[in-house]
Amino acid sequence: MSVTDELLANNAAYAERFTGPLPLPPAKHVAVVACMDARINVYGVLGLQEGDAHVIRNAGGVVTEDEIRSLTISQRLLGTEEIILIHHTDCGMLTFTDDQFRQAIQDEVGVKPTWAAEAFADLETDVRQSIARIRTSPFIPRKDSIRGFVFDVATGRLTEVE
Amino acid sequence: MSVTDELLANNAAYAERFTGPLPLPPAKHVAVVACMDARINVYGVLGLQEGDAHVIRNAGGVVTEDEIRSLTISQRLLGTEEIILIHHTDCGMLTFTDDQFRQAIQDEVGVKPTWAAEAFADLETDVRQSIARIRTSPFIPRKDSIRGFVFDVATGRLTEVE
Repeated sequence: MSVTDELLANNAAYAERFTGPLPLPPAKHVAVVACMDARINVYGVLGLQEGDAHVIRNAGGVVTEDEIRSLTISQRLLGTEEIILIHHTDCGMLTFTDDQFRQAIQDEVGVKPTWAAEAFADLETDVRQSIARIRTSPFIPRKDSIRGFVFDVATGRLTEVE
Repeated sequence: MSVTDELLANNAAYAERFTGPLPLPPAKHVAVVACMDARINVYGVLGLQEGDAHVIRNAGGVVTEDEIRSLTISQRLLGTEEIILIHHTDCGMLTFTDDQFRQAIQDEVGVKPTWAAEAFADLETDVRQSIARIRTSPFIPRKDSIRGFVFDVATGRLTEVE
């Protein structure tokens, strides 16, 4: 049995105790942008319930064009007003450079990605960079509450990046 | 008090009962790509625990360049082997067209996005399109288990797209 099949069995149990449907727009009018890291259970970390917040995740919790797309849809079509960014300690993105990553792929498959891996050398600096990318986007209407945090994978605690 | 402050208070309670740290690579060697929709609690839906799987999310659960970036990092650097895609019923992406969305932004802010909103008219067709984008990427090494599902927001149940 594949892991996917095992997780589908879990879903059957989830559906047994599920009560829905809930409304489409997020009840708390919040969008979260977090790293894809397996140790960050965003609903747990922030005490979210089903229906509360949009959750956008990727390698690093960085803001690229696709996160601008998602945040634009989140705010303009579904009424979210606050943005929470979450990077975390012990992040894989701290362990390599874009140049190394792209060269390794070129060496192995013969094609170099046209995109950056978005690796970073400092967590707080990259949180600020992610906030700056949102602030400079003309497509995101509500920028009054954009706050960035580092999640500590040892303690479960969020620390704000000032 | 902002919603962000309220969620930070929830985090303090989460940290009180948190036990960590866990290893960086996902224990179940799985990466999930799901819609950002507030009603999809991916950890709940799949019965995941902290540390189990990478979770990548965006508007629609579609696969654009940034999801290829995240999946490439997930497989090449952190050893995931299976990919699970999750779209869902009552998705906002079914309610508009890219042309409408981009024109509305141009009308309001004077600048038309260079990117597509990735709206779609049919869930199953877009799940297959997302799988096709992964299959055709030269950067993702493991393509033996790429399976797509529709999450029913009324029942909590996943149905596979064949």
